[in-house]
Amino acid sequence: MAKVAFIGLGVMGYPMAGHLANAGHAVAVFNRTAAKAEKWNGEHGGRAAATPREAAEGADFVFSCVGNDDDVRQVLTGEAGALSGMRPGAMLVDHTTASAELARELAKAASERGVAFLDAPVSGGQAGAEKGILTVMVGGEEPDFASAKPIMAAYGRTITLMGPVGAGQLAKMMNQICIAGLVQGLAEAIHFGKQAGLDIATVIGALSKGAAGSWQMENRHASMAEGRYDFGFAVEWMRKDLDICLAEARRNGATLPVAALVDQFYAEVEAMGGRRWDTSSLLARLER
Amino acid sequence: MAKVAFIGLGVMGYPMAGHLANAGHAVAVFNRTAAKAEKWNGEHGGRAAATPREAAEGADFVFSCVGNDDDVRQVLTGEAGALSGMRPGAMLVDHTTASAELARELAKAASERGVAFLDAPVSGGQAGAEKGILTVMVGGEEPDFASAKPIMAAYGRTITLMGPVGAGQLAKMMNQICIAGLVQGLAEAIHFGKQAGLDIATVIGALSKGAAGSWQMENRHASMAEGRYDFGFAVEWMRKDLDICLAEARRNGATLPVAALVDQFYAEVEAMGGRRWDTSSLLARLER
Repeated sequence: MAKVAFIGLGVMGYPMAGHLANAGHAVAVFNRTAAKAEKWNGEHGGRAAATPREAAEGADFVFSCVGNDDDVRQVLTGEAGALSGMRPGAMLVDHTTASAELARELAKAASERGVAFLDAPVSGGQAGAEKGILTVMVGGEEPDFASAKPIMAAYGRTITLMGPVGAGQLAKMMNQICIAGLVQGLAEAIHFGKQAGLDIATVIGALSKGAAGSWQMENRHASMAEGRYDFGFAVEWMRKDLDICLAEARRNGATLPVAALVDQFYAEVEAMGGRRWDTSSLLARLER
Repeated sequence: MAKVAFIGLGVMGYPMAGHLANAGHAVAVFNRTAAKAEKWNGEHGGRAAATPREAAEGADFVFSCVGNDDDVRQVLTGEAGALSGMRPGAMLVDHTTASAELARELAKAASERGVAFLDAPVSGGQAGAEKGILTVMVGGEEPDFASAKPIMAAYGRTITLMGPVGAGQLAKMMNQICIAGLVQGLAEAIHFGKQAGLDIATVIGALSKGAAGSWQMENRHASMAEGRYDFGFAVEWMRKDLDICLAEARRNGATLPVAALVDQFYAEVEAMGGRRWDTSSLLARLER
């Protein structure tokens, strides 16, 4: 069993840290809102920490899962940041969905302290985190991946090394780009079907095994047809991810016309008051 | 066993008619290019017919599967059309992907002769037709559906009544609208991944079971990553289908921004010489 720290107890990090504790690891946690850390410690008997640095001291592995690039810098770098407390030979794993640029910046900072680094964004949402069945997309060196993988198995079901540092983030971006086009297509189809007077469940039941089939179709068509958009992955988070995708595309020369358009559609959903609706609320925009 | 006629021996109709013959039905075929009908008759010992009308005479069920609305009108209506040869009490089933308007027009013409009508577009492509595992989306009356379903089971695996006449076509349109957004999203993701230097097979292997997963991702990512676009359902057919979707949306008030945009992208693929490439060639356009 390892000595680990977990920084960031949001909807993802809270249950992920819980799975590490349940697997028998000694877990020190830090959260910017201290009340959540206290609650977590109450449940799991973990060690309280006043700063990310304090949580990270003496840890073999430090995991972080926070909001965006700036949040990551805030908790990992600087005087009170986790990195400053880590010993040489330890490993830093960032589960935040952030830019590949940040991953390379962190890997460099870690390397200067003799600390290994992996970028490891996840997918599977809150439900996947709670059930411990996340998909973990990892960028880094093979030996580092091999030593962190058994620890991440506490909450990850599919854990894949995608390439060098940054490749985990780039793979996660591919995931989000797929979803943008896919969900908009599904939303247009359901909108069309409702306007045409079709019974959506009957149609989707027949289509879902064929060439139009998708996870989103199977898992979201019923709630979409009912106009319920409360399944967790919020529009504001998707916009943050699409912003990362579009910025990276500007760097690598890819053109993403539909991802860019869908990002604008999500801006309209936000203007409708849908910042916290889930990503399938593209349908609500069509039905305005 | 029934006496049936099959009009249209294209990449779909040829094997579909073959499955009817293999199931023991007496099949008369008609094809505008007579050589194909002769080849089919040579293989299946069917009855040759000089006109759709002649093929349809005495049949319990007449099936058609041709190109577009005008082709359907040409083979089913008028002096030499199948309908004019059909007896009262027989049933006409159109498997062509066509407009819901045409379906209603044909149902009316059929009804005037005492003939039942079902619109029944299929999905599953050439491979699905050859294996006899098509998805059949049916519009019409319940008793008519019940009597035609056992016959269509020769080539259909999922055969679903979607609603009244026209509903089969409308369901097929939902299918194509989903695919338009989905394939473009997948193409943008693969394009992005290649620009970023990722190994596409590794990334897709991890993503395909999650929220970005789709039939298209599973079945097309490898050929897309290699730039092969030879899987049968051609860009020019997809444009015909999207044209039907957009025309119907104009009638029913649905807005289909991404379907309309992807239709324009396919126009660009055609301009690149890709009229006969498959629908995943949206990637080729991004890589120009």
